[in-house]
Amino acid sequence: MSHPPSARGPSLLKIPDGDTRERKVCPDCGFIAYENPKVVVGSVCRWGERILLCRRSIDPRAGYWTLPAGYLELNEASAHGAAREAWEEARAEIAIEGLLAVYDIPRISQVQLIYRAQLVRPEIEAGPESLEVRLFGWDEIPWQDLAFPSVAWALSHYRDSIASGDLTTRHNPA
Amino acid sequence: MSHPPSARGPSLLKIPDGDTRERKVCPDCGFIAYENPKVVVGSVCRWGERILLCRRSIDPRAGYWTLPAGYLELNEASAHGAAREAWEEARAEIAIEGLLAVYDIPRISQVQLIYRAQLVRPEIEAGPESLEVRLFGWDEIPWQDLAFPSVAWALSHYRDSIASGDLTTRHNPA
Repeated sequence: MSHPPSARGPSLLKIPDGDTRERKVCPDCGFIAYENPKVVVGSVCRWGERILLCRRSIDPRAGYWTLPAGYLELNEASAHGAAREAWEEARAEIAIEGLLAVYDIPRISQVQLIYRAQLVRPEIEAGPESLEVRLFGWDEIPWQDLAFPSVAWALSHYRDSIASGDLTTRHNPA
Repeated sequence: MSHPPSARGPSLLKIPDGDTRERKVCPDCGFIAYENPKVVVGSVCRWGERILLCRRSIDPRAGYWTLPAGYLELNEASAHGAAREAWEEARAEIAIEGLLAVYDIPRISQVQLIYRAQLVRPEIEAGPESLEVRLFGWDEIPWQDLAFPSVAWALSHYRDSIASGDLTTRHNPA
């Protein structure tokens, strides 16, 4: 596609009429790109006593271990999105059990909804965004090689909920 | 602002290279407007046995009663957003107690996070998006004049949680 030299998309920060916050506006056509926080949906999936993790093939944090998770899509319910991500990243078929945690990551404008789930069958396989996928016992979790702090939070919260039977939804640790 | 006749913003539906879903693309400059579900944050706020509701001054559902709630903003934690909305819509100063419910509204690509909260002081006043604000006893709630189904869900779930002491996070009713 060839672009006219003036075409830059919504690149100008200004407060639109009637608004109270700066938004990105296209200097060419006036289109306002309202940006909002994004919803990440994911799951802690178990098969017996083992937990599914995926080693990321993409940045950020390529090579590190994460839960199957990703952006919720338009017109998608959050539990459905979590199951879709488990399929896309690990070819895992899962049954959602309940909402483990809601984490706020305001620095990057994310809200994460992490579900408790069980694998329906133990067969898993790396999808395009994973280098490998594996079921880990609790004493095998690669705590030093997790991709993001919220992965460690979710694993710890899941282990707590199994140990205590407390199924209340967890939040960012203090 | 005067627009060149060809400028329409991102109006063309197409699947960008390397993507798997249709996105809105600007036919003039190629800008891709990724659209994602939005997060609505709100609260059921009580003062003693009474619950705060706001009568909407704006569409959709102007004239009907709702909880203080609105879109989460960039770089905002969800509980902070819920408190901000209570201030903007009802000049209510609130203390968040916990997460009452997560509702999926995939038809309009919303995820709603509704908190349990207490008013810090009973003074309230209509903000610009409210015609009036009021504290209702349970036998006064205007069930027939609520703005959205999720307002009724949240009020019922809140009443249940008070009656039972069960503080687990609720979801869409079956």
